[in-house]
Amino acid sequence: MKIQRLLIGYLWIEFVVFQTGFTQSFYKDSIMIRSIYDVALTQGTCYHHLYRLCKEAPARLSGSANAQKAVEITYEMLKAFKPDTVWLQPVMVPHWIRGDKAICYNVKNKKEKYNLIALGGSVGTPAGGINAEVIEVNGLEELEKLGEEKLRGKIVFYNRPMDRRIIDTFHSYGGCADQRVWGADEASKYGAVAVLVRSLTLAADDHPHTGVMLYNGENKIPGAAISTKDANHLSAQLKKGSVVLHLEMNCKNLPDVKSYNVIAELKGSEFPNEILLVGGHLDSWDNSEGAHDDGAGCVQSIEVISLFRQLNYQPKRTIRCVLFMNEENGSKGAREYADEALRKKENHLVAIESDRGGFTPRGFTVEGDDGKKEACMDALREWKHLFAPYLVHIFEYGGSGVDVSKLKGQGVALLGFIPDSQRYFDFHHASTDNFENVNKRELELGSATIASLIYLFDQYGMHHKEKELQLPD
Amino acid sequence: MKIQRLLIGYLWIEFVVFQTGFTQSFYKDSIMIRSIYDVALTQGTCYHHLYRLCKEAPARLSGSANAQKAVEITYEMLKAFKPDTVWLQPVMVPHWIRGDKAICYNVKNKKEKYNLIALGGSVGTPAGGINAEVIEVNGLEELEKLGEEKLRGKIVFYNRPMDRRIIDTFHSYGGCADQRVWGADEASKYGAVAVLVRSLTLAADDHPHTGVMLYNGENKIPGAAISTKDANHLSAQLKKGSVVLHLEMNCKNLPDVKSYNVIAELKGSEFPNEILLVGGHLDSWDNSEGAHDDGAGCVQSIEVISLFRQLNYQPKRTIRCVLFMNEENGSKGAREYADEALRKKENHLVAIESDRGGFTPRGFTVEGDDGKKEACMDALREWKHLFAPYLVHIFEYGGSGVDVSKLKGQGVALLGFIPDSQRYFDFHHASTDNFENVNKRELELGSATIASLIYLFDQYGMHHKEKELQLPD
Repeated sequence: MKIQRLLIGYLWIEFVVFQTGFTQSFYKDSIMIRSIYDVALTQGTCYHHLYRLCKEAPARLSGSANAQKAVEITYEMLKAFKPDTVWLQPVMVPHWIRGDKAICYNVKNKKEKYNLIALGGSVGTPAGGINAEVIEVNGLEELEKLGEEKLRGKIVFYNRPMDRRIIDTFHSYGGCADQRVWGADEASKYGAVAVLVRSLTLAADDHPHTGVMLYNGENKIPGAAISTKDANHLSAQLKKGSVVLHLEMNCKNLPDVKSYNVIAELKGSEFPNEILLVGGHLDSWDNSEGAHDDGAGCVQSIEVISLFRQLNYQPKRTIRCVLFMNEENGSKGAREYADEALRKKENHLVAIESDRGGFTPRGFTVEGDDGKKEACMDALREWKHLFAPYLVHIFEYGGSGVDVSKLKGQGVALLGFIPDSQRYFDFHHASTDNFENVNKRELELGSATIASLIYLFDQYGMHHKEKELQLPD
Repeated sequence: MKIQRLLIGYLWIEFVVFQTGFTQSFYKDSIMIRSIYDVALTQGTCYHHLYRLCKEAPARLSGSANAQKAVEITYEMLKAFKPDTVWLQPVMVPHWIRGDKAICYNVKNKKEKYNLIALGGSVGTPAGGINAEVIEVNGLEELEKLGEEKLRGKIVFYNRPMDRRIIDTFHSYGGCADQRVWGADEASKYGAVAVLVRSLTLAADDHPHTGVMLYNGENKIPGAAISTKDANHLSAQLKKGSVVLHLEMNCKNLPDVKSYNVIAELKGSEFPNEILLVGGHLDSWDNSEGAHDDGAGCVQSIEVISLFRQLNYQPKRTIRCVLFMNEENGSKGAREYADEALRKKENHLVAIESDRGGFTPRGFTVEGDDGKKEACMDALREWKHLFAPYLVHIFEYGGSGVDVSKLKGQGVALLGFIPDSQRYFDFHHASTDNFENVNKRELELGSATIASLIYLFDQYGMHHKEKELQLPD
């Protein structure tokens, strides 16, 4: 065993070199990864790209004019890096519009107003609105107990808060999202006329957070979110006595619209048929600039192409950047992408999704088909020490992302990029998810982290073992 | 080897129990730490305390009326938790005032203004200000090369930027802070009449960041900071030709003022003479609310007392919360504290400082006297797995903090609490270091992390080995 010092970029790093320890490839990979971070932090383009996407194409909900603008802008961004191919993959997407009415007040006291936002996909109220008594529940499972007798004609108010104690806020979100997604559908079975949902955020704030809702049944009733502060207020009012609310929204579903996934590719020199996918989703909700969700993931995916171009890196495998359309309310882009991959018998080795915000990078989760996810985890464990200098430390099994998960069954290792989750739900689906709430360095570090992992997969595929070449003394 | 499942709080955690693996104390400690985080995240008081401190006593620079107000507020906060003792430790502190003038413009083009902030401790300019040509340098080391001939009568403009490539932003800061602290003193030796310093931040922003400067020599010249955007602008102007600036400031040093460290103690039941210190600093710069620097550290230290009280935890050792006065410009509070500890022959086992902002917790650094720091690191390594569920993962040797480091030589292990550093210098010493820029959960998680480590030191001291009691099958 001996100590070796190595200048990586401008930093002296000390290595303990064991007989069977770090090898030449470790040095090479360390230096390449250091270069990736250096370029990302000093000449990165992702922050500027995010600015453009947020300011020129905010509120890019599927089917909207701004979604089309986002397609054009990102196509142009990718084209500028002269990848081997850039193309648009057509896909039909839902076209839901919010309308201009979102009114909610206490019928007995019209000054008591609630700041309402329709859930994505909701039907509107009948013209003139609904007046109905509110009944508060703590989750879907309470409906059966209350039964039709108590629920018919009522507005069901789902008020289960996200659990503050859970460290990973996505897990807290997972414990409540069913209220928003299926709340209206379930309540309609018991004759409810509308639902209100407590916003899915850990913050005590004044602005409602929207998100998708789905209908299975034929009896479609409207669903809307109110802010956590309003939810607390409404709950307090209900403790004093019955509350009748007036609810009025004119959102509606229009016919599907043609839209696109935006795709760019650096062709592999040795194994062009092995595809390494990195992606985010191009659409956003219509009440913000969609900066964290998922402008960040888009510009980070574009940045992988940019960084490799800036570093004159010629990949061995094919690196594909995919900006999926319609993650928020339908996943039509991801389905179309996966279907075409299957038809064309494409061989995706890995697919990494960035859709958890532009925060300080912490690691990756892995899922996927049997054999693939384990092979991928073996590789990650082998490479973990390469990420330690960048404080990236989480490599664990877990959900990847809504878009790449559509590739399940095609023998792909699916990875989710994991940034720090503490602030994500402050902005998630709210009017505050804007460019100004993204930190430049945090975003850039995320890009570099994703690009570094793509680099390692490019070098070694799933054959992660570093070559056992010993350095000369 | 077998798998054990344990309900910690509301979470099932799976443990692999080896023959010589996790022991009864691991279970007990896991549960206690889970409880600490639960209380911090659901009934925490630190965010509300921070609000009070920031709004009622912003700009609490040593010697100011607001610094005195901060002493009174935090004394009252601590008293409310009924610790065994709360007291004020008197200390004489510097009293520097900024005055009402901070003027900087281009003499040839008075519309070209620079947003100036005097560095803490700076003398003012002569009445009527200074008009002088600017010479840009990239650091202290360039002065000798330029010599008196080029520097006499000039305003020296230190424009070395923080290195964006370094992941730990405190290290980037460390690579530039000498310009701010010693820039004026060094330049005065060559006959310079004033210095301007590029703000120490990685952000491209419009507001200057202040900070302390020191004089060793008798020839005291004024020092001020300009924003990074202004620094870039000035540098661009200098590339076009000579720039003569008008500089005017009326800051000054007044006689020292009596102030206080605020201290509270939970008396240990078994080893009352072994002190576990947790602290932050009460003073702040005068241009903000001092939210991250170091309101966060103060309220997190107070929260340690609060959490143990809420959990009815009776410590074995003495837990002392110390809010130091005057960290920013003199460290008189920390010196007084350390001197008195020495005089009284107090036995501090560990001292943990929180002075790196209220961001997501990442870990701790350790330094201190020989033997102590190694023993502490051994303990941390033993306990590391207890912090893994909270994503706290950095346990390394490194600087602790300005205040606790004054205890060096008294046989103490000194620890620095390490939150995520990416955003810290966006706010550091700038007018934006306000309550609204602190995230509630990130602050609370920090409190819980510090309290958990204090709990472990309380249970085991430096005898970190968990008892090798095997659980019954």
